[in-house]
Amino acid sequence: MEEPHAAGKTGLLSRDFLPEFVYGGIDGAITTFAVVAGATGASFDIPVVIVLGFANLIADGFSMSVGNFFSSKASVDAYEKHKATEHWEIDNLRETEVEEIREIYRKKGFEGELLEQVVAVITSNKEVWVDTMMKEELELSKDQKSPYQTAGMTFFSFLLIGFIPLAAYVFALIFDTSKDNLFLYACILTGVALSIIGVLKSTVNNKNVLQGVAETLFLGGIAAILAYFAGDFLENLFR
Amino acid sequence: MEEPHAAGKTGLLSRDFLPEFVYGGIDGAITTFAVVAGATGASFDIPVVIVLGFANLIADGFSMSVGNFFSSKASVDAYEKHKATEHWEIDNLRETEVEEIREIYRKKGFEGELLEQVVAVITSNKEVWVDTMMKEELELSKDQKSPYQTAGMTFFSFLLIGFIPLAAYVFALIFDTSKDNLFLYACILTGVALSIIGVLKSTVNNKNVLQGVAETLFLGGIAAILAYFAGDFLENLFR
Repeated sequence: MEEPHAAGKTGLLSRDFLPEFVYGGIDGAITTFAVVAGATGASFDIPVVIVLGFANLIADGFSMSVGNFFSSKASVDAYEKHKATEHWEIDNLRETEVEEIREIYRKKGFEGELLEQVVAVITSNKEVWVDTMMKEELELSKDQKSPYQTAGMTFFSFLLIGFIPLAAYVFALIFDTSKDNLFLYACILTGVALSIIGVLKSTVNNKNVLQGVAETLFLGGIAAILAYFAGDFLENLFR
Repeated sequence: MEEPHAAGKTGLLSRDFLPEFVYGGIDGAITTFAVVAGATGASFDIPVVIVLGFANLIADGFSMSVGNFFSSKASVDAYEKHKATEHWEIDNLRETEVEEIREIYRKKGFEGELLEQVVAVITSNKEVWVDTMMKEELELSKDQKSPYQTAGMTFFSFLLIGFIPLAAYVFALIFDTSKDNLFLYACILTGVALSIIGVLKSTVNNKNVLQGVAETLFLGGIAAILAYFAGDFLENLFR
């Protein structure tokens, strides 16, 4: 059985960053696939496909990381704002806040004299008091991940998983192998990229791996097909 | 002063979805700008720019929402997994877990007989016990937003804010106005879109609005410039 304490670790590769890894990886794989599909449809040479693919990886990956940065920062700011509100309420609406602590501990099964003693201890230390309100009343925990960490992990995952659909083109260029069927390989590799995400999220969370892979392949596949038509079909239609 | 209880509400437009709105909006504005820049660089007609823009909104918005869905689901699953671990530990390592509750309440300022009474009440109800371990030991709160809600809000924001850089082209087509300077207007409107996000995240979280706008314009601007070169410059270079 896993140690539950692992939730406190914040190393880049720890399970804590699984949500960012999944988010960045899925979007990276699908947008790179869209670029490869569009470039293939336009009959670009392999070096051009690769340059466009890497350009998308860097530009779209950076764009997504900027979105992640401000999104994470908004969460952190919201937490700090609620905490400031609780501090204000304790200073200005003390009796109401004491009653809220009493209600929180009554719900935990405390009553009578013991309940009053517990309320007295909690409300004797303002930090403990605010901390209790945040966790019990607002159900908010302080996120231990910084916006820089979540944005970095999103970028890393976008690049790493997003490179997979490009891999066949890079391989063909470097080793000068057959240029046939490269787009077919890109389709298969995009499926592999989505499957890796599916396997990862399932094993980390002790869920059924087959179901996890089927989910990412199904929804990711729909997104890839939409991206294919958006990037390739429409472009050719209007040219 | 705001009511802190607002954190419990889960309406689509409540502040709870600010992180998703920010994330989807920033990525929507920048990727649409990239499409508009690329299409303008390739001298496409206005209807083509609009079709490509909407195709990107739907395809990339859907791709991002799929990423968000699995990312949110991974968070929910991680919470449930840790909860199952705590249940297992209480059943199998009871004494260790009792000692952990004792340590948690000692840190809150309880001691002696009162501490023992508190530990006895908390550990008399398994739900309260597990809930305490989740909040106090693991610092995890149950996310009240479902993956469907966060993915839906991401898609909505991607479409809404992502449409803004396209607006000048749609306006020029519908009202048959001058076709000059459309790309310039798209650049300005992208700045407006990023500023809206900046204003929104600052006002909701009681932060300095000017600073919030400057942040999104600065990092979003870098991402937009990267996207511009990726979509337009490189494509022309290799053709």
